[in-house]
Amino acid sequence: MHDSVRTASDLRALLGGDAVLTEAEDLVRYESGWRYGKGRALLAARPGTTGEVSKLMAYCQAHGIRVMPQGANTGLVGASNPDASGQMLVLSLERLNKRLEIDPVNRTAVVDGGLLLSALNGALSAHGLMFPIDLGADPTIGGMIATNTGGTRLLKYGDVRHNLQGVEVVLADGTVVDALNHLRKNNTGLDLKQLFVGTSGVYGVITGAVLQVVPVPRQQAVALVGCVSGEAVLALMQVLERELADVFTAYEVISANALIPVFTHHDDIRNPYGTGRPPAYTALVELSSTLPEEALNLPEVLEERLGAFLEGDAGEGVTDVFMGRPEDFWAIRHHISESLRSEGKVLAFDISVPRSRMAAFTEAAVALLAKDYPFVRACDFGHWGDGGTHLNLVWKEAESSRPAAVLVEELQARIYELAVRGFDGSYSAEHGVGPHNQRFYDTYTPEPVKGVNHALKQHLDPGNLLGTTRLA
Amino acid sequence: MHDSVRTASDLRALLGGDAVLTEAEDLVRYESGWRYGKGRALLAARPGTTGEVSKLMAYCQAHGIRVMPQGANTGLVGASNPDASGQMLVLSLERLNKRLEIDPVNRTAVVDGGLLLSALNGALSAHGLMFPIDLGADPTIGGMIATNTGGTRLLKYGDVRHNLQGVEVVLADGTVVDALNHLRKNNTGLDLKQLFVGTSGVYGVITGAVLQVVPVPRQQAVALVGCVSGEAVLALMQVLERELADVFTAYEVISANALIPVFTHHDDIRNPYGTGRPPAYTALVELSSTLPEEALNLPEVLEERLGAFLEGDAGEGVTDVFMGRPEDFWAIRHHISESLRSEGKVLAFDISVPRSRMAAFTEAAVALLAKDYPFVRACDFGHWGDGGTHLNLVWKEAESSRPAAVLVEELQARIYELAVRGFDGSYSAEHGVGPHNQRFYDTYTPEPVKGVNHALKQHLDPGNLLGTTRLA
Repeated sequence: MHDSVRTASDLRALLGGDAVLTEAEDLVRYESGWRYGKGRALLAARPGTTGEVSKLMAYCQAHGIRVMPQGANTGLVGASNPDASGQMLVLSLERLNKRLEIDPVNRTAVVDGGLLLSALNGALSAHGLMFPIDLGADPTIGGMIATNTGGTRLLKYGDVRHNLQGVEVVLADGTVVDALNHLRKNNTGLDLKQLFVGTSGVYGVITGAVLQVVPVPRQQAVALVGCVSGEAVLALMQVLERELADVFTAYEVISANALIPVFTHHDDIRNPYGTGRPPAYTALVELSSTLPEEALNLPEVLEERLGAFLEGDAGEGVTDVFMGRPEDFWAIRHHISESLRSEGKVLAFDISVPRSRMAAFTEAAVALLAKDYPFVRACDFGHWGDGGTHLNLVWKEAESSRPAAVLVEELQARIYELAVRGFDGSYSAEHGVGPHNQRFYDTYTPEPVKGVNHALKQHLDPGNLLGTTRLA
Repeated sequence: MHDSVRTASDLRALLGGDAVLTEAEDLVRYESGWRYGKGRALLAARPGTTGEVSKLMAYCQAHGIRVMPQGANTGLVGASNPDASGQMLVLSLERLNKRLEIDPVNRTAVVDGGLLLSALNGALSAHGLMFPIDLGADPTIGGMIATNTGGTRLLKYGDVRHNLQGVEVVLADGTVVDALNHLRKNNTGLDLKQLFVGTSGVYGVITGAVLQVVPVPRQQAVALVGCVSGEAVLALMQVLERELADVFTAYEVISANALIPVFTHHDDIRNPYGTGRPPAYTALVELSSTLPEEALNLPEVLEERLGAFLEGDAGEGVTDVFMGRPEDFWAIRHHISESLRSEGKVLAFDISVPRSRMAAFTEAAVALLAKDYPFVRACDFGHWGDGGTHLNLVWKEAESSRPAAVLVEELQARIYELAVRGFDGSYSAEHGVGPHNQRFYDTYTPEPVKGVNHALKQHLDPGNLLGTTRLA
């Protein structure tokens, strides 16, 4: 057992008084996650420099104190919260947020790991630049790297991994690894930063990063397209992409089951289908471009191209095309999750499958539910352009004879089995592993991958001090 | 010492007679590299399936035979050639080239590691798709992954790493690791494939891959722009990128010293500057787009935008703008290396620095040469859009009092020191490490990076059987 009073006193001497929090009411916000994850912290330490993170880790290693690195604590798999032991120290990076150096010619930004995404984009906008990972939350950059965040515009820009040039990391023993590579091209062996991307901080604490940034688009155009089936959604995607790839920034698809509740619970959001029932799927097509309007008129191109496609084979599955203001159509997409929660108990998934199998996977999931869980409604929506689906299952608790917790566990196991084994898919498209997905990681990860993780953990953190996610 | 007769006989029994080559005249082409690398092979084995690669590796591990995996042997750092011992077996992947499954809706291709890039692009073109790594050579896909090839359109598409979804790898002990991920989004811990990207096969033999592919552009436009200085080149790049990022596919820059020899040695290539001396730099600006001409007229946009920029601040450093046929302008770029070789002894570099420091680095290199090597001419050209420069140094051997080999060694050491330590740059932007760059790897790689490589090598290839590049 670690003595929190003694530890706090030592750390105040190392990091300064402000850096250490021990009062229960101060610790609450570090202990519970956004959606999952709830534990108890020994204390929270908030170093303000990479040197202080190094001192802190050296101290923790010397005293055998386990450490949970934490950014803005907005993750969705509980990977940034301490366990229930009360013996883990939360290393919050919220005060490590001062470094922010923009090089507009290199199109890079060097930042501290604790810098918020909003602060970064605020500073970049003065240069007409942005970090293109588009999210609802406002995470830290270090947390985004540890999660390898995706977002709604992955189709065009890729995930964090695709926009990361370098990292600075503090290892479990306090060693500072400067891999702050500023280069787009640098083929000198192993790309060390990759070990820290998407691995929830278990190999080191991300204290800094070099990010590649992009010009802010000058214009956008958005359409909603009604489709009779998932296959029609895929056919439309393919023809759109072939001609519009350079400016195709989002392809979000909403099933009727996910769409109708938005209008039921939000009088202020206009239903483009009026009083009729929407078709099986509605695709939100977004184009964005850095080109000025005099060179490329995006709304005109989108309307004209959609019209041309409708006359071809891909048009057979299309029921409606609505052009409109981007913010109005995105409002529909952004109100789905919350509207579904007004309909009953919700079990959300974060699944991916190959794009070509999106329709088939969804049909198989619906068939599985119809057979064994007839009271469950599949309300699926997601990033079809990236093969991601947030399949949401909704039911009234009164209609199920079993406790929700039991049902949730069974549904997760069966749906993930279908996605991973049946459709070459993933049980975590963009949220990560963490305690929430640990049992699926254990089930679905090939032994050679666990073996490499074991070797890395032995080398980088032999005392097993960092994080709670077990990758070995 | 291994007995090549006995080994060949064992391997013929395992893999079939055609798979094994032992005659000196048959081995020549496996023993010497495209530019560097020359050794002697125990024999060459050419398995035709992943299962055969696995059997071969298990045999080699059991007998302690060192193995050099080799694709098309087009690499530029000697990383695919056996050493001089005559004791290494060349594992050629040239017959592992049958698998080629294209999924046009997923926009992916699953391929064997030995498939040639030209064969892949040939098959993809029927679907209007391509693998966007643009190169002079025709390598295998496995070799491209082991090298993390870049090419001339990295600015738009990134390197191999950015377009790779999954790999199949055979480890030193014959274990087949199936990491043939078909997903764009899959955040389930360590991304194992990254260990095999750019590491020259020292962690495993790449027998298969899932590649992300892109729509073939429908149109291109190219201009040559004369600039008075490197700073003017960077200013132009920045303004072009801000508006044209979506369609900006190459920004190749050629110094006057590299440009003039092209016209000297090629009467059939037209000099747009006529009889006058070219300005300090000429930038080749390429735009490409999937959009049809009726939506976006690229040549018009390029000419019009360049005109508009010339009236702004960026125009001050511009001397000339020439619009022309892409193939004519690219012909100039593609004849530089060979034209320089007609001018004298050439020492080529493959350096990168942050894009914002390209002009300053080049000036510093020129100053270093002018002071200590006045007989050496700096003929620099390269991918300025990616921060890459193929600085070529040219001299007449008669003008130097020292042997070329001594001079080469000294110039490499001094120029790399300038790039890496002076400008946060890299001694290998896109060619890789290999024996050719081993001493620079040893000098410039941070100890923690070597430590991780040591742990990985211990775990994945404890007998040190694979490859000649030493990353630990």
